[in-house]
Amino acid sequence: MGQLYIHNIDILSGHTIIKDGALVIDNGYISRLLTADDIQEKEKERTIANDVLDGHGQLATPGLINTHTHIAMGLFRNYADDLELMDWLENAIWPTEAKLTDHYVKWGTQLGIAEMLRSGTTCFSDMYFFMDTTAQEVAKTGIRAVLSRGLAGVAPTAETALVENKQLFMDWHGYDHDRIKVMLGPHAPYTCPDEYLKKVIALSHEIGAQIHMHLSETKGEVENVISQTGKTPIAHMNELGLFDMGCLAAHCVHITEEDMDIMAAKGVRVAHNPQSNLKLASGIAPVPEMQDKGIIVGLGTDGSASNNNADMLEEVRLAATLHKARLYNPKAIPASVAWNMGTIDGAKALDYSDLGILQEGFRADIVLYDVSGAHWLPRYNDVASLVYAANSSDANTVIVAGKILMKDRSLLTIDEEKLRSEIIKAQEYFSH
Amino acid sequence: MGQLYIHNIDILSGHTIIKDGALVIDNGYISRLLTADDIQEKEKERTIANDVLDGHGQLATPGLINTHTHIAMGLFRNYADDLELMDWLENAIWPTEAKLTDHYVKWGTQLGIAEMLRSGTTCFSDMYFFMDTTAQEVAKTGIRAVLSRGLAGVAPTAETALVENKQLFMDWHGYDHDRIKVMLGPHAPYTCPDEYLKKVIALSHEIGAQIHMHLSETKGEVENVISQTGKTPIAHMNELGLFDMGCLAAHCVHITEEDMDIMAAKGVRVAHNPQSNLKLASGIAPVPEMQDKGIIVGLGTDGSASNNNADMLEEVRLAATLHKARLYNPKAIPASVAWNMGTIDGAKALDYSDLGILQEGFRADIVLYDVSGAHWLPRYNDVASLVYAANSSDANTVIVAGKILMKDRSLLTIDEEKLRSEIIKAQEYFSH
Repeated sequence: MGQLYIHNIDILSGHTIIKDGALVIDNGYISRLLTADDIQEKEKERTIANDVLDGHGQLATPGLINTHTHIAMGLFRNYADDLELMDWLENAIWPTEAKLTDHYVKWGTQLGIAEMLRSGTTCFSDMYFFMDTTAQEVAKTGIRAVLSRGLAGVAPTAETALVENKQLFMDWHGYDHDRIKVMLGPHAPYTCPDEYLKKVIALSHEIGAQIHMHLSETKGEVENVISQTGKTPIAHMNELGLFDMGCLAAHCVHITEEDMDIMAAKGVRVAHNPQSNLKLASGIAPVPEMQDKGIIVGLGTDGSASNNNADMLEEVRLAATLHKARLYNPKAIPASVAWNMGTIDGAKALDYSDLGILQEGFRADIVLYDVSGAHWLPRYNDVASLVYAANSSDANTVIVAGKILMKDRSLLTIDEEKLRSEIIKAQEYFSH
Repeated sequence: MGQLYIHNIDILSGHTIIKDGALVIDNGYISRLLTADDIQEKEKERTIANDVLDGHGQLATPGLINTHTHIAMGLFRNYADDLELMDWLENAIWPTEAKLTDHYVKWGTQLGIAEMLRSGTTCFSDMYFFMDTTAQEVAKTGIRAVLSRGLAGVAPTAETALVENKQLFMDWHGYDHDRIKVMLGPHAPYTCPDEYLKKVIALSHEIGAQIHMHLSETKGEVENVISQTGKTPIAHMNELGLFDMGCLAAHCVHITEEDMDIMAAKGVRVAHNPQSNLKLASGIAPVPEMQDKGIIVGLGTDGSASNNNADMLEEVRLAATLHKARLYNPKAIPASVAWNMGTIDGAKALDYSDLGILQEGFRADIVLYDVSGAHWLPRYNDVASLVYAANSSDANTVIVAGKILMKDRSLLTIDEEKLRSEIIKAQEYFSH
């Protein structure tokens, strides 16, 4: 891979705008960040670069990081909405998922990747089935992903799923300089009995894998665990040892002060999915409260059957606004914090130490936003603009690990016509 | 105005999709809605039309109706965020607004209209200053609007403002077949003493004008009115007679069961601004509860200094999702109801009886959405897609009162380059 040079561009580095800057990208990393004053350096870098991008009229930011989704569920977007969770699962989603094959997961994954790249997301954390197929799509399309095989401790697939997740880890963990990482994906306490979770935890120690799990999403499941064990799901999971190798916990809507203390002590990172939690009537997670305890909270879209899109900018906006009203506090989550949640905190939630911020030595996962729209005017504060005013379709060019995956709104690694025809066929298949 | 014919298009009429339909538009109204079977009729209409639009790959819907904004406040977008309301008003907004002139309101209004047309909004209800200028921009750009001069009962402008609002009504109410209507705009109980409101109400009877007012937006103002009068703001306004000529009440976040009974009995219509209410930490209005009482609830963005954009699709999405979580009920506001709130209920809130739905005899305010994006696939349910998955930038062509104002993403009545340069100048002006 040669050197990529992006110039003539405003760069959001942390919360600071570097006007008329330039980025030098080498082997997937930002090797230099140049300012308007570095005139000679810029000229030199431009001449030796293999590829030059003119960023005129654009704003470079880190790519958004989707810390929790089931990306192939885009196949079931708008299939069934506004239902009670169990009605939705038992009568709509599960019977339809039973018809899933490798083939459909391939196209569902590609659909989600197309949608994410088009809306400025450069990395996602997924939990689903047929994950080797998902890994292949990630490898091929160039996006970054942390993959976990969804594990449910019920016959007949309980043991096979564990074997598959281990194999996924062996095959893909660390692929392409950590462009793909693998975690274990026990679905939730209510689908994984303790004996099964003990096997998952043993496997996590055996291979050195972290765990990605749904925790305390709804009131009902929390009440069930309490009535069965006398403990909250978080306390119970902690006792089982689930947090010992590192854990990404999705949702955490219904948690106690004591739960948060455990999470903070054990370094549990959280994937907050505000839109899914609203749409599925789960509630609103106590995010500023978690942040006050020092817990890392990233953002996720959840699957597009329960969102119904993979637009991370919507999650950033909701994170910034929702908690203000819940707490009657306009400073609950300021724009700068919400932006961090969508970028650097998401990176930390997925255990990347050099991702989510545009600075030298960090991974080159970058979005160039077209800032020419009326909704970008006036331009008093670009972070506020991204968080409160921008449209995800302003993402004009997207780079992951130093490679350009979308240029001027054209996807370079996905054939969108082919994708469209395959999704139409999938719709026919699942409709009968 | 000649006849416009739109064909080769899917049409959302109510909640039903008419595949491969056609619309005939005459003098600003939909005169015919043709289906796939009307082959001869379609051929005939096509040949006699003055202008033909091919809607291939698009979905025609009614335009979104923004029932509450201060549109020129787009001038102060991202100027100051995440502050306590009084800090924000007293130290950021009011000192800046004091520098407003006719000239800046003109460009601020045009900025907002550009943004609304680009995001599929065809009608807005505005409350601000220099409203004759706003009316001229509405007249010129072709959008539909209901305008009210913001009235505050404080010296030295209290009486002048009343005179201006009356003049605005005389000059513009009913303009171009009700493309512009005028209401009186008393700002809020906390800025309008009773004696002043009595003058407003007397004027409303004198000229036959309805009233547009902020009511019960924050806890604090409600508590103040109760401590001063012994009554809630709604009960107090009702006693003053504010609802007798017809009233559009913005916000209504903190209202009681008895308030809702009064509102239902008096036919008060509500402008619900979910994103502004979240961002300003005001709270969440009891919308399904109001709807259960038969109160009409439309949606609004509020001004772009407190939102920070004029994207109505975000409000539709929030209306559909927010109340589900608040009430732990996934059916609280189904997609179809949220869509109605953004369209037909918005029309009713603004007292249009023939707007907000695509059917024969209704006003031709129409958006053609490009449905080719990945987020539109698969296509199980177009109403759910609009409410939960669509992006406002999918609005490709926008028609108001039968005239095309945006075609293939190009605004036909606004010079965007000129607009941009004027907003940059305005930013310089307000920054010093």
